[in-house]
Amino acid sequence: MTDSAVQVAHVGLGAIGREVVRLVLRRADLRLVAACDISPELVGTTIGSALGESTDGADVTIVTSLAEVPATDDLVVTHTTSSSLARCLPELLAAVEAGAHVVSSCEELSYPWVQAPEEAARLDAAAKEAGVSVVGTGVNPGFAMDYLPVVLSGATKQVDSVKVHRVQDAGERRKPLQAKVGAGITADEFDRRVSDGGMGHVGLTESAQAVAAALGWDASDTTETIQPVIAATATASAFGTIEPGRIAGIDQVAVVRVDGVERVRLHLQMAVGIGPSQDDIWLTGDPDLHLTVPGGLHGDLVTAAALVNTIGSIRHAEPGLRVMSELRPPRPAPTRG
Amino acid sequence: MTDSAVQVAHVGLGAIGREVVRLVLRRADLRLVAACDISPELVGTTIGSALGESTDGADVTIVTSLAEVPATDDLVVTHTTSSSLARCLPELLAAVEAGAHVVSSCEELSYPWVQAPEEAARLDAAAKEAGVSVVGTGVNPGFAMDYLPVVLSGATKQVDSVKVHRVQDAGERRKPLQAKVGAGITADEFDRRVSDGGMGHVGLTESAQAVAAALGWDASDTTETIQPVIAATATASAFGTIEPGRIAGIDQVAVVRVDGVERVRLHLQMAVGIGPSQDDIWLTGDPDLHLTVPGGLHGDLVTAAALVNTIGSIRHAEPGLRVMSELRPPRPAPTRG
Repeated sequence: MTDSAVQVAHVGLGAIGREVVRLVLRRADLRLVAACDISPELVGTTIGSALGESTDGADVTIVTSLAEVPATDDLVVTHTTSSSLARCLPELLAAVEAGAHVVSSCEELSYPWVQAPEEAARLDAAAKEAGVSVVGTGVNPGFAMDYLPVVLSGATKQVDSVKVHRVQDAGERRKPLQAKVGAGITADEFDRRVSDGGMGHVGLTESAQAVAAALGWDASDTTETIQPVIAATATASAFGTIEPGRIAGIDQVAVVRVDGVERVRLHLQMAVGIGPSQDDIWLTGDPDLHLTVPGGLHGDLVTAAALVNTIGSIRHAEPGLRVMSELRPPRPAPTRG
Repeated sequence: MTDSAVQVAHVGLGAIGREVVRLVLRRADLRLVAACDISPELVGTTIGSALGESTDGADVTIVTSLAEVPATDDLVVTHTTSSSLARCLPELLAAVEAGAHVVSSCEELSYPWVQAPEEAARLDAAAKEAGVSVVGTGVNPGFAMDYLPVVLSGATKQVDSVKVHRVQDAGERRKPLQAKVGAGITADEFDRRVSDGGMGHVGLTESAQAVAAALGWDASDTTETIQPVIAATATASAFGTIEPGRIAGIDQVAVVRVDGVERVRLHLQMAVGIGPSQDDIWLTGDPDLHLTVPGGLHGDLVTAAALVNTIGSIRHAEPGLRVMSELRPPRPAPTRG
């Protein structure tokens, strides 16, 4: 790290959070000053022992919350606790009121202005009052299906509609992702989970609305649907073989219409065996454009990196609750040693 | 336009400049308040008569320079006069000293910190003094070979090297571009023009250095080479048939090395008949990534658009001379009526 290293406090030591901390410890331009988690097994131990890391900075002792962290100027909080904005809001407000910028993986924070306007307004006001900036990001939402198509639009005179198709072969991804998409469950169980609201990728609606808002379209008419991907043949998964007829994953679509005209269509398929993974973006307008990422933007590998890469961007953002399209491009920096 | 429309003054009414003005007139969020050109045939006429446009706002009378434009708050100057920073500098300083943000097509302005550090420092200081922001941009430099690879890096943990390959079939492009790449000239004439420094695409070195700087690499060791693309068969061009053995276009490479290790390689091929046009970006690192734009990002069609799309970005930038990777993504906005 350098003398001018940015001070980072991390909240939430789940799988993504641990990876965030590992990356912060590795980056030459960042310095970990605090780590928080509510788990009694972690509180009081050092980050080094919790993560098996012995790098410089790993002697930070884990505390329960930011309330136990001494106030410091120019602090950035990285936050990875929940997909739910309602659950994250008290933590986000605490960070902001402590004078810290915030980069959070909370999917519902990535564009909360339509789904949760009151929470958004409250957080925005608190951030402006404190002179700090807050953003929700990651690979998806935050990059693949929203930031990247907005960036591409910069090379057009006019955009009439945006289509994104993201295919992620869940077989290449970690077990929790395979569980999240329902790998191996029955069609009945899939339907039950959908009814309970506990099935599928969180943030697709927010991504669609973020794209619409960035291009000047009213995002209030957004619909989202989810269908199962059914295994056609016996398919290997992290939970053993998925028999034909069982669920291999999810197929989700979010659409924004303006005056009945479809402007944004985001199509996400995450299923075991559905590969090859790939991201495609099509803009229709003047001119039409097509962008493709063969092999796809790997969600698990880089969600933590997308958060850490955004630390530099949030420090240069205007105060308030921001969306990614208002931020300079996130990017990695040289690592130590 | 809306009451909150951003005021735009344009300088330089060549082909790209005229297209910039057309787009400004079309956009609902912008209002043309002035247009400047040194051509005696244009000064004193209206933009409407010069461009054959009759839209609202086209009654602006063309003047020689910004010195004749009344001072106004929150003005953005779009500037398209020359590729040479030395030639543009007085105009850029005049705009900044008038309190305007500047978006310029000057290729050498896109990353002037290595090639022209004194001019860069002078402009940066003047912009900070005036509290305004300045950037050089376009499709290339400004987007295809620099901004887009930097954006892509945001979805990685670490980048070890960046390679970009841009193929533009000059046969699909306007006559001046075909002339610029030497379509139809002899190999001797090509060599003569290269020796005179008048051959090839301006800005490739700057793009390579912009990528390097954004990723934390020292950009001082940059090399650039240019080779002719020779027509293998008779090829139709805007100047008639190019006979085999004559020049079809250019093949340029810019490389940045750090401690002898190649970090950035930008390869640009612009030649008649070399298609299909395509842009490819490869990042090696963790993970490797490949992005492709089949059909390519069309230079002529969207250079003007890239400038106009950056008006919103420059107004939210920090004061000073900026590079694109410090700006929020440019994007188009809904047009009028």
